[in-house]
Amino acid sequence: MTVETRASSRCFGGEVHYCSHHARATGTEMRFSIYLPPGDGPFPVLVWLSGLTCTEENFTTKAGAYRKAAELGLMVVAPDTSPRGEDVADADSYDLGQGAGFYVDATEEPWAPHFRMYSYVTRDLPAVLKSDFPARQGPMGLSGHSMGGHGALTLALHHPELFASVSAFAPIVSPTRCPWGEKALSAYLGAESKTWEKHDASLLMASGTAAGHFDDILVDQGTADGFLEEQLRPELLEEAARQGGQKLTLRRQDGYDHSYFFITSFIEEHLAFHAERLR
Amino acid sequence: MTVETRASSRCFGGEVHYCSHHARATGTEMRFSIYLPPGDGPFPVLVWLSGLTCTEENFTTKAGAYRKAAELGLMVVAPDTSPRGEDVADADSYDLGQGAGFYVDATEEPWAPHFRMYSYVTRDLPAVLKSDFPARQGPMGLSGHSMGGHGALTLALHHPELFASVSAFAPIVSPTRCPWGEKALSAYLGAESKTWEKHDASLLMASGTAAGHFDDILVDQGTADGFLEEQLRPELLEEAARQGGQKLTLRRQDGYDHSYFFITSFIEEHLAFHAERLR
Repeated sequence: MTVETRASSRCFGGEVHYCSHHARATGTEMRFSIYLPPGDGPFPVLVWLSGLTCTEENFTTKAGAYRKAAELGLMVVAPDTSPRGEDVADADSYDLGQGAGFYVDATEEPWAPHFRMYSYVTRDLPAVLKSDFPARQGPMGLSGHSMGGHGALTLALHHPELFASVSAFAPIVSPTRCPWGEKALSAYLGAESKTWEKHDASLLMASGTAAGHFDDILVDQGTADGFLEEQLRPELLEEAARQGGQKLTLRRQDGYDHSYFFITSFIEEHLAFHAERLR
Repeated sequence: MTVETRASSRCFGGEVHYCSHHARATGTEMRFSIYLPPGDGPFPVLVWLSGLTCTEENFTTKAGAYRKAAELGLMVVAPDTSPRGEDVADADSYDLGQGAGFYVDATEEPWAPHFRMYSYVTRDLPAVLKSDFPARQGPMGLSGHSMGGHGALTLALHHPELFASVSAFAPIVSPTRCPWGEKALSAYLGAESKTWEKHDASLLMASGTAAGHFDDILVDQGTADGFLEEQLRPELLEEAARQGGQKLTLRRQDGYDHSYFFITSFIEEHLAFHAERLR
């Protein structure tokens, strides 16, 4: 694979790079940012999946993650949230199409040719990290926000061989039971809601998927999040964890909203959570 | 004064607010962000002046300053870089007009009616902080980046009664001797370069302005900064400090560029520098 480095900056003694590469899964150029901590590596890897409307930039500039990543010697990778380009399908809406890939492989037109973020994150991205960067071999950590929290939970539950730790900020915990999820999954996967179920973290967890693999899953949720009751519904994940026997540490953070001001306040605790499990 | 709070988020146990108010100096609505650390105050205040093209948002979302500000109990305020609006003069250029106020009071048309950022930062902003927020009475800290580093140095040297500490990141240290400064000062203050001199930190420092007031001035400059040789010229400030008997700690940070990835890497050290002097 050939990775193009589009921009680089030194940061906390390491380097932030904005990169792009041709991804087989999406058939497009995909972009990601990567933080390399000081030193030669190999480094354990944390992948961050962003939410609706985000690109690879939001986390990179706003999360304030690299001070602690440098200290912990953690490589942190943040991919874009969908394929993009003039030849890629789009919708006139912030929660579908470009910027809203939902970490599934679409089966329906016009999305099927390129909207394959599930395969991109579980196949192309790990491959390029191991071929082109000083990534430690073996499982990675996975985290994300909102739509990306949904992605983190579902991909980690399906791929315990790839991920040793998982956490999320304000995740969409049950896309089969919220407007964002219903809209996206019906568009990408078709009207038959049976096919949606394997992309629903709460349903997966309740049925015992990957049970016994993750010693704990860390989720932070702000109590002043405007999407809390209609879209996020963390109580569904709590109930699923009980049913499936999965230990879950769900922290309701008093007064925090859905923004990166919330994420930055707790990102260092998530980095430490992953670093401990990636040792 | 009436301050409108446009948005608020909890962050590291405190609150970030985006505010606006009518400013007498500029005759316009001015915007700023303010971080209130946890607790009731009164809190010592650090004012941050941003660089060309910035609004009040850049520092607020990208600097990663609030973790340490919360820990130190420091209020941090970041104003916009110029007056703005349809009735406000502008230029078709990133380094003049809206987004490029240069922290002077313009005397020339079409800028004179509104481009009065010197008065705004030294008069209106301190007043609103003390009337509407739990700011500690007494001198504040002042810092900034690039054009805002120029603003921080010049305003602090002229107003030791307002500022007890000053630092800068990659400041324009001598606007009378670089293209950005020559363009802006000739437009705002007229062709007679004699009037520019009191807005040149190196000339002020060399002539002993505020000598004896600041026990030290902290400046960080990245060695990979693309503006280093033509626009920033930190060696002029070093020479001026020697001439004027001002202690200056100028740190050349190896491999860092002009971006917020540079600022975030050292902002906590600047916050500690100010907090120590504002005790």
